[in-house]
Amino acid sequence: MKASQFLISTLKEAPADAEIVSHQLMTRAGMIKKLGAGVYTYMPMGLRVIRKVEAIVREEMNRAGAIEVTMPVVQPAELWQETGRFDKMGPELLRIQDRHGRDFIIQPTSEEVVTDIARQEFKSYKQLPKNLYQIQTKFRDERRPRFGLMRGREFIMKDAYSFDKDRDSAQISYQAMRAAYQRIFDRFGLQYRAVRADSGAIGGDLSEEFQVIAATGEDAIVYCPHSDYAANIEKAESLPPAGPRPAAREALEKIATPGNSTCQAVADQLGLPLSRTIKSLVLATDTSNEAGEVVKTQVWLLLLRGDHDMNEVKVGKVDGLANFRFASVAEIEEHFGCQPGYLGPLNLQKPVKLVVDREVAVMADWICGANEKDFHIRGVNFGRDLPEPELVADLRNVVAGDPSPDGQGVLAIERGIEIGHVFYLGTKYSEAMNATFLAENGKPTLFEMGCYGIGVTRLPAAAIEQNHDARGIIWPDAIAPFTLVICPIGMDRSELVRQETEKLYAELLVLGVDVILDDRGERPGAMFADWELIGVPHRVVLGDRGLKDGLVEYQHRRDAAATPLPLAEVVPQLRAKLGL
Amino acid sequence: MKASQFLISTLKEAPADAEIVSHQLMTRAGMIKKLGAGVYTYMPMGLRVIRKVEAIVREEMNRAGAIEVTMPVVQPAELWQETGRFDKMGPELLRIQDRHGRDFIIQPTSEEVVTDIARQEFKSYKQLPKNLYQIQTKFRDERRPRFGLMRGREFIMKDAYSFDKDRDSAQISYQAMRAAYQRIFDRFGLQYRAVRADSGAIGGDLSEEFQVIAATGEDAIVYCPHSDYAANIEKAESLPPAGPRPAAREALEKIATPGNSTCQAVADQLGLPLSRTIKSLVLATDTSNEAGEVVKTQVWLLLLRGDHDMNEVKVGKVDGLANFRFASVAEIEEHFGCQPGYLGPLNLQKPVKLVVDREVAVMADWICGANEKDFHIRGVNFGRDLPEPELVADLRNVVAGDPSPDGQGVLAIERGIEIGHVFYLGTKYSEAMNATFLAENGKPTLFEMGCYGIGVTRLPAAAIEQNHDARGIIWPDAIAPFTLVICPIGMDRSELVRQETEKLYAELLVLGVDVILDDRGERPGAMFADWELIGVPHRVVLGDRGLKDGLVEYQHRRDAAATPLPLAEVVPQLRAKLGL
Repeated sequence: MKASQFLISTLKEAPADAEIVSHQLMTRAGMIKKLGAGVYTYMPMGLRVIRKVEAIVREEMNRAGAIEVTMPVVQPAELWQETGRFDKMGPELLRIQDRHGRDFIIQPTSEEVVTDIARQEFKSYKQLPKNLYQIQTKFRDERRPRFGLMRGREFIMKDAYSFDKDRDSAQISYQAMRAAYQRIFDRFGLQYRAVRADSGAIGGDLSEEFQVIAATGEDAIVYCPHSDYAANIEKAESLPPAGPRPAAREALEKIATPGNSTCQAVADQLGLPLSRTIKSLVLATDTSNEAGEVVKTQVWLLLLRGDHDMNEVKVGKVDGLANFRFASVAEIEEHFGCQPGYLGPLNLQKPVKLVVDREVAVMADWICGANEKDFHIRGVNFGRDLPEPELVADLRNVVAGDPSPDGQGVLAIERGIEIGHVFYLGTKYSEAMNATFLAENGKPTLFEMGCYGIGVTRLPAAAIEQNHDARGIIWPDAIAPFTLVICPIGMDRSELVRQETEKLYAELLVLGVDVILDDRGERPGAMFADWELIGVPHRVVLGDRGLKDGLVEYQHRRDAAATPLPLAEVVPQLRAKLGL
Repeated sequence: MKASQFLISTLKEAPADAEIVSHQLMTRAGMIKKLGAGVYTYMPMGLRVIRKVEAIVREEMNRAGAIEVTMPVVQPAELWQETGRFDKMGPELLRIQDRHGRDFIIQPTSEEVVTDIARQEFKSYKQLPKNLYQIQTKFRDERRPRFGLMRGREFIMKDAYSFDKDRDSAQISYQAMRAAYQRIFDRFGLQYRAVRADSGAIGGDLSEEFQVIAATGEDAIVYCPHSDYAANIEKAESLPPAGPRPAAREALEKIATPGNSTCQAVADQLGLPLSRTIKSLVLATDTSNEAGEVVKTQVWLLLLRGDHDMNEVKVGKVDGLANFRFASVAEIEEHFGCQPGYLGPLNLQKPVKLVVDREVAVMADWICGANEKDFHIRGVNFGRDLPEPELVADLRNVVAGDPSPDGQGVLAIERGIEIGHVFYLGTKYSEAMNATFLAENGKPTLFEMGCYGIGVTRLPAAAIEQNHDARGIIWPDAIAPFTLVICPIGMDRSELVRQETEKLYAELLVLGVDVILDDRGERPGAMFADWELIGVPHRVVLGDRGLKDGLVEYQHRRDAAATPLPLAEVVPQLRAKLGL
């Protein structure tokens, strides 16, 4: 490709609404162009990256035996009504009516359509297992689309769906996809982790996320540096605390803590570590009648160590707390006789249901709110000042330094961007849609399903979050818009430069290198700045002075400076660098 | 590919709603699956065809210097309001509101978005010409979607848009696209014609359609077998009639034609050729005030020869008839004092505006309705029985046998399916959106635009309409789902068959042949029927008996019978047949 035949459009400034570096750099490098909130045109430079991502995904999906289909973007509501998702999904599901007033949706994923295909096509266990995938436009009407391709509304996703005759076979299909995902992410050339994840609203038993490691990631990833344990913080278990509870040593004492409404402030006032304080969180659960009216509300008090954070996924798994909400201030005052900031389990106005984190259950002499404004209590002990806790559970996020659940050391935490997800779905969808096949025993049997997603347009953004510097993007070779750029200096003035440039360009094309020749005639500074912003990993510069000494310059995007190369060495060296 | 790893799903019967052969065969061959009215899943077998079409289109677009982008499927209404198409387009434009109540549309084409890109990106004449294209999902909310992929609602289209600095340059861009289209359609291996077309609602001056020739086509294509003249019948001009009008010979005579309300019936009654009769068509045009109320209606009478059909495009170009409609029965009775079936230009109740086709203007002694039920008049002559016509125009469709407008012989008519269209748009969109660049003279100047479409998902349907027989589809090699199928007979029983099959399969894979090995273990009859239905062009059958004599069987899908080939000859012969 010659640059003059292509569309190169770089900007000095990022748009004001670009909050993260990938959004800024993709816009400045002319890879995407905003059309509306969360809706982008993939410009030629960006589309080349997306096409390379697609090609790798497609190759590995095919290699894993998955079969490509394309399901409609605009889907009739009927199937979505069968599973109930037409009503259950929030406004993220974009609903439309056609000219005849019939309901349609724009696909956010395609479980319903693919399950409908399976129940029509896969009549017998002999046709199983099967895995159908598509690489296709999706839409989610995010409330606050932002971060460019990271959280857009329209995006391209690879979604695959496996159909198996039983759970054992489904586990094999799941593992095959997991292995394919590892090959895919290895080929992208990114640092990533496969981490255990909560399966969330989509349901199912087993689920792992593929997270690209980046300091700016939305997700916290917990991992053990000495083993292969890795999990999303939502999912990561904390081990039960080691020893038994120490004996009580302090007497109960009410202390004035004027204005100190946080655990940290109280710990600072007392000169004690934050881990000696207790955090009181008040939740509520409602019971409704058939008309949907709330007929009963239960208020809950959760106790966590002051230096720990509540894990909503874990809390939601406590018996009775599946549909918890945070209690209102009125509910808190009714039960505690006090506003938030000074709450605790002692001296309640009305009984609440107490749930105690495992770490709290083994603490002695702790500090909590007194249920009186500007007062706390210290020296609190279970079994003495309040009953032994009945409900003890893992309620907290793990923290760096916690022991790894696999006993192989202590945990570390880093941030990541989710770009892939493998789910074992079980029969959630096949049951809702009565999707069956004839099993070996001749009986109609529900498909065991899995689903597997990769955010094709999100991936380039994640790659940039991981790989950039002050000058711009640094693409891994596999997904760079071009692998190599040839920058001739003064090609219009020097016949030598023109000849050697055209010769090198032709040789690289013959070798199948994805090369771009910058024949725009820009000044060297502007030309280099463009390609450093765009992030092409390999660059060869040809100038009159160097060529007269038989030299050109090679520089990898990560190199601090250029390396002179004898002209005769250029092609062999590039072949080595590019693995050709 | 091995068939056991793929999804082959053939049906004996076509669905009841499949009216045309391509819809029937694509459904029966398992290439598409209906999800809703005009909305189809592209199944694995069909998607392979679509991907091959896309690849050819992409290659030739790139070769022609066009640059690929991807514009959003869901587009904000604002740009569509700038050109007025948001309001002007009918219900084919699917309009949506997002969660915030903002208006969006699903792209039917992308003139607005691409013009918006151009006005931001192409600041100077130095950046021109440019041609941007995409291969992307489109949606048109057809009132009556039908015919499978031929007239679906969701479809894939390649749409390209050229931007030039002036008309001369735009003509070159247009011709470059036209040449690319010829290469594309040549590569598809289909019989087609590039025909002149009316540019219709999209506007602009110059426009050609690429029509795949098929007896079932919706469009009538007029062409000259002795020259390269070809046009859509909408556009094809009829030459002015040859000689002057003959002298009047008959006297005016009112004749009883009881129940004969058509020209054909009257001609039959009189034993005269249909071409002696005159067809009276009554149109009306309304004038509205600013409030949109009709303040005046003009009624028009068009006279055409009884054997000619009215051409609505040509009629619409007559001064004053741009927005014509057919007159109501009440309007007809008011002006003619008679119901339709016996109308004519004599004895009117109220004056009408008369427009006469050129052929009629040179007729003498013609027959028309008497404006009295069950009566016609014969021997009618201009200048004697009614005034010489003031308004004479080309109002009719050409018919086979008409002289070719280029004087190279007479015209023939065949039917075609439009799968490509090249338009010169001029400044229609750049003007509406004030899309300018700085010209050499330093002044902001409107882009000269062209647009160029190919119906990617329609093309396979058109190919089938042209290439099928009673047993199924006959794909051209270039777009077949597989180029060649290997059908082993009794592979599970004969080690010889198994060995030679695997060997041939491996050799063909190495040669890069897109081969499928049918290892499903079907009976030969069922297996052959499947592949004939699916339409794979080349087939090799390996059986135990033949192999013992060192023979396999080759059959092209168009061959009446198989040809025995010595085993050693198979690969060389296939290489020759496949051009490898």
